[in-house]
Amino acid sequence: MKIPPVKGTRDFYPQDMAVRNWIIDGWKKVSLRNGFEEYDGPIFEYLKMFQLKSGDEIVEQLFSLTDRGGRELALRPEITPTLARMVNQKINSLTKPIKWFSVPRLFRAERPQKGRLREFFQWNIDIIGIDDVLADAETIFCALDYLQQVGLTSDDIVVKISSRKMLAEVLQTTGIAEKELEALYAILDKRSRLPIETFERMLSETVGDKEGCRKILELMSVESVEQVSSLFELSEKAKKSVDELQRLFELLRTMGIADFCVFDIGVVRGLAYYTGIVYEIYDRAGELRAIGGGGRYDDLLKQFGGPTIAATGFGIGDCVLEILLREKGLLDKQLPKSRLDYFIACVDKVYEEAVVKLAMKLRLAGYAANFSYKPVKLKKQLKDASEQNAQKCIIIGDEFKNNELVVKDMATGRQELIDYDEFLVQYTKSK
Amino acid sequence: MKIPPVKGTRDFYPQDMAVRNWIIDGWKKVSLRNGFEEYDGPIFEYLKMFQLKSGDEIVEQLFSLTDRGGRELALRPEITPTLARMVNQKINSLTKPIKWFSVPRLFRAERPQKGRLREFFQWNIDIIGIDDVLADAETIFCALDYLQQVGLTSDDIVVKISSRKMLAEVLQTTGIAEKELEALYAILDKRSRLPIETFERMLSETVGDKEGCRKILELMSVESVEQVSSLFELSEKAKKSVDELQRLFELLRTMGIADFCVFDIGVVRGLAYYTGIVYEIYDRAGELRAIGGGGRYDDLLKQFGGPTIAATGFGIGDCVLEILLREKGLLDKQLPKSRLDYFIACVDKVYEEAVVKLAMKLRLAGYAANFSYKPVKLKKQLKDASEQNAQKCIIIGDEFKNNELVVKDMATGRQELIDYDEFLVQYTKSK
Repeated sequence: MKIPPVKGTRDFYPQDMAVRNWIIDGWKKVSLRNGFEEYDGPIFEYLKMFQLKSGDEIVEQLFSLTDRGGRELALRPEITPTLARMVNQKINSLTKPIKWFSVPRLFRAERPQKGRLREFFQWNIDIIGIDDVLADAETIFCALDYLQQVGLTSDDIVVKISSRKMLAEVLQTTGIAEKELEALYAILDKRSRLPIETFERMLSETVGDKEGCRKILELMSVESVEQVSSLFELSEKAKKSVDELQRLFELLRTMGIADFCVFDIGVVRGLAYYTGIVYEIYDRAGELRAIGGGGRYDDLLKQFGGPTIAATGFGIGDCVLEILLREKGLLDKQLPKSRLDYFIACVDKVYEEAVVKLAMKLRLAGYAANFSYKPVKLKKQLKDASEQNAQKCIIIGDEFKNNELVVKDMATGRQELIDYDEFLVQYTKSK
Repeated sequence: MKIPPVKGTRDFYPQDMAVRNWIIDGWKKVSLRNGFEEYDGPIFEYLKMFQLKSGDEIVEQLFSLTDRGGRELALRPEITPTLARMVNQKINSLTKPIKWFSVPRLFRAERPQKGRLREFFQWNIDIIGIDDVLADAETIFCALDYLQQVGLTSDDIVVKISSRKMLAEVLQTTGIAEKELEALYAILDKRSRLPIETFERMLSETVGDKEGCRKILELMSVESVEQVSSLFELSEKAKKSVDELQRLFELLRTMGIADFCVFDIGVVRGLAYYTGIVYEIYDRAGELRAIGGGGRYDDLLKQFGGPTIAATGFGIGDCVLEILLREKGLLDKQLPKSRLDYFIACVDKVYEEAVVKLAMKLRLAGYAANFSYKPVKLKKQLKDASEQNAQKCIIIGDEFKNNELVVKDMATGRQELIDYDEFLVQYTKSK
């Protein structure tokens, strides 16, 4: 009986695991140096937690399950609701600002496509307790710190930035009611992925009056923050959100990452809970889906039963990132090679005990060591040593009668005869 | 609206995550030095894959779900079926022996108890392609390499070892039919957890004749491998399995781990697929559930549509292990502390740009750095630096007008005035 894997999931053979580990280790390293601490939550939560505030797109894609007690659960499609739950649970004892990161495994029941799987990893960082855009700028810096670290430049990637607060304020001056905003965001978020006619039809179905539609289309065509100010009559609140965007771009310059960043009013984000700065990271060529995105969600913790507290963060998935790094030739050459310090070859069954003993001693001392399970031909054993990328091969053969070992350097091919006890003293000191 | 976490799952706050990471990093390190390569599979697989060969206990505890395409899936309760599937898929291109490890997140829909959660991590190592008990011995060594590494001694833990092959052979000489064995294993596996009367009643319900029951009870009371030979008339196959057990104990002596290992005919294992050596690791005091267990499963790959190929391995969960390490006082003192290289304090808003610039420079150079988001009182900022375990606090204040920084060593309290450019040259070389 042969059973296949489930479509949209991945088997991580050692060579695939090496890629996954390299990506995730990089995320962790950069998070730590940016001053974030790691957390994680459960793989499943109550279904209603995700229905509450994540936006329709994600809720449609939930893997749900019912446990024996009849509880309705779901595999997490994102970790932000869990973060909100966890922070709320300990809100009084946690030192603010909270700077946390996580690398959750996430699940979305959608049709698998290039860069989009039903099971994937996502790097999340969040800053809770800082309302200044300095925190938003810092999250963008952190994402770019990693992306630069793996070799991507501003020729390869771009961060497209906007503000939902500004969008909301300007839309409201054009006559859109506050309660219509969420439905409108969902349409605006799809704009770049839809044929223009489809987009305009959806827009007019939602907005109704022609003049309103025209103004929205005009707004969506602005190319700079300044244009927003010059083309639209701005309320005091709208002006403030424009100032905030301008301060953000100044901070990005101070941080040395201005080359990566552009204003793009088309960036709205699919999730329902964003309230301020929003951004998405793309390949410059525009051939792939978003590498990641994030923004400010100052109301979410309150909606989850906690206090009103400022929050901002991003998520970057592993699938599109891996495709981009591969396409740019940045993946294979940076991947650490698995290696063995020692391979121990056994010339005759009578030396089995010595082989086993030495291998275990080396391991206990911290060296990566393998050995031959059977005294097959030495040539075959040396081939095994080489395939396992052993630095040295120790050959236990007839020299062992004189308490000696042959140590072969696999890179140079040079062999030495070494006294066993001397070898133990020299080489099995704790690594 | 406040939503609780699901019972039997864990929230990993940074201090909990530090424990989880320390345990898992230790597993990975020891696996690598024992010559294993890491792999992983998907969190869910087809439900039937687990129903096929895992034994009733696990199947009853599956979290199952149905996807939009009507496919019946389950969250993995163990990774061995996935391993068998993955190895079978690439059986011809994989170099043998296959030595793989994994640290899967697993799920069992059972009542949460001490050391038993519905979501947990398990360290798995497996050797595929070696039929010699040398491979079984090596897996036991690998488990003990880790357990010793974290400070457990043979006074703390014990590996109880038996052989299903021997048990099967001897049971068959007492008149049990081969097809009755699986049901009998399930009862024998529960023996130590049941009142003696309950066990004997279950046994007589399964076996039927009184003489058969008496012989089984006699067999289950033997205390050494030698006693099996002396009390029972052994077939040639039974003798071979006794010899194999004896060779295993010799190898464990050679490996220097005999003190940890005992023969215990009561160890049968709950999983259906074991075929040879089986073992379980316990705390010596016998107060906790098994820390882990494993054994040989030479038929599993064939049952999953692959070739007949020898296989052996173990699983060690994180829950009981963590309890034991805590009880022995081995956990807190070994936990690496999170730390920051630099905290940058800001004396006045006018220095914000300098603070942000320096923090980002330090991070890009590889240093873990945080900074103050607001120029609150210096005392408060120094307190923040100390709480974040910063090694040094850089104070940017009026000295900055002369291009100078104050650098405070947080351990000694000593402060130095350093020229900004000199500091950059000295301290922001790539770490």
